[in-house]
Amino acid sequence: MAKTRFAPVIENKTAKGRVVLVCEHASNVIPDAWGDLGLTEAQRMAHIAWDPGALGLARGLAKRMDAVLVHAPVSRLVYDCNRAPDMAGAMPAKSEVHEVPGNAAISAAERLARTESIYLPFHDGLHALLMQRVAMGLRPVVVTIHSFTPVYFGKPRSVEFGVIHDADPALAVAIRDAAVRQTRLNTALNAPYSAADDVTHTLRVQATPYGLPNAMLEIRNDLIATAAAEEAMAAQLAPVINMGVQEIQKQAKAS
Amino acid sequence: MAKTRFAPVIENKTAKGRVVLVCEHASNVIPDAWGDLGLTEAQRMAHIAWDPGALGLARGLAKRMDAVLVHAPVSRLVYDCNRAPDMAGAMPAKSEVHEVPGNAAISAAERLARTESIYLPFHDGLHALLMQRVAMGLRPVVVTIHSFTPVYFGKPRSVEFGVIHDADPALAVAIRDAAVRQTRLNTALNAPYSAADDVTHTLRVQATPYGLPNAMLEIRNDLIATAAAEEAMAAQLAPVINMGVQEIQKQAKAS
Repeated sequence: MAKTRFAPVIENKTAKGRVVLVCEHASNVIPDAWGDLGLTEAQRMAHIAWDPGALGLARGLAKRMDAVLVHAPVSRLVYDCNRAPDMAGAMPAKSEVHEVPGNAAISAAERLARTESIYLPFHDGLHALLMQRVAMGLRPVVVTIHSFTPVYFGKPRSVEFGVIHDADPALAVAIRDAAVRQTRLNTALNAPYSAADDVTHTLRVQATPYGLPNAMLEIRNDLIATAAAEEAMAAQLAPVINMGVQEIQKQAKAS
Repeated sequence: MAKTRFAPVIENKTAKGRVVLVCEHASNVIPDAWGDLGLTEAQRMAHIAWDPGALGLARGLAKRMDAVLVHAPVSRLVYDCNRAPDMAGAMPAKSEVHEVPGNAAISAAERLARTESIYLPFHDGLHALLMQRVAMGLRPVVVTIHSFTPVYFGKPRSVEFGVIHDADPALAVAIRDAAVRQTRLNTALNAPYSAADDVTHTLRVQATPYGLPNAMLEIRNDLIATAAAEEAMAAQLAPVINMGVQEIQKQAKAS
């Protein structure tokens, strides 16, 4: 099998900070093998294909927090690396109100091919990076960076910053608390989604089994729509995330 | 980094059965790079180095259940693939009453090297196999096969067959129930260890995050001390495991 393997992009690999930033929906690139999936250019630029602003924000955070950043190089419409291979959302036939013609009838062989080309390299790459740090006695903290659309199925969303947890709520709660104290963002825990919606796959696979502190951050994408806005949001959120990490370190020492 | 990567051995790869058998402690081989870890030959043959009988039993089960079998090719004293890289038991300085001189002072670089040579290839290989099956719409069932010593720290153990679960007890309970009905083995749930002893690492990493049914089986090694005994135990346990799987399939349909 000489299939292309789309390894994750790793930036700032030797960063000294404890946080490992992950961006599963960084890219809207559809590799040639999948054509345009039957989508218009506007659809391929829209939030269904990626999380607009998330990569720019994550880069701004990485720089300010001395954090390594791991991101996927392929659109989530080809394979959503934050979903297991048997989840409907892994290769969605429909995303929000948009049909995805190229995903309408995926054979088992095609599902396998995308899993091997995109899902496995992404998670193996992230796993290796995390285990290298674990082996060296560091205790990485996994923070995934996402953006969400301000209008979903026609309804506006008022939340601006969502902090989502998997089995261990400690870091998410600490980040939410810091955001409420330090920013004027409309901040909420487990919004606009929660683990019950199966959106915490990366945390479940990469962090929870190792007892690594973790959280998923969701920023409304109209707040990070330009490079300047991404930078401003990074400047605002880097200290918030750092306070969250400090808080759980304090709790760990006290227990 | 031109380090040797010790990929897992995969037998019966195209097996049609739903069960994936895993044997993390199949081998007592210490690769040349690690010499003899300062152990006597008797120690290198003892249960501290591997799970005697587990591989023979697993092969007997694989044949009878049409199951794929994944096993580690290196002694658990070099790296225990059922432990995360930051657990003391991953590269133990002491195992039961035996000091392991070669593990007395492991540097961070050595811990990293063993993680990259043994732990990552094992888990990446198992992960790929499981995800391939998940992508093809199969729902693999993960069953790990272990053996335990009849005398531990000088105390005899009366349990003969232990069935251990991680977060989801369904399959373990069903296998325990079938063993009680079908065999005369002294059978117990979560004995001689339980998930609280951090012995379910493979289940936690490979099965629990995907919602795959799973269980860890522990057979007292004096009951599988010869090839004939391994075969007899496989003949006894294959139907027990199959009944357990059938039971959870029935429960899944009913719910």
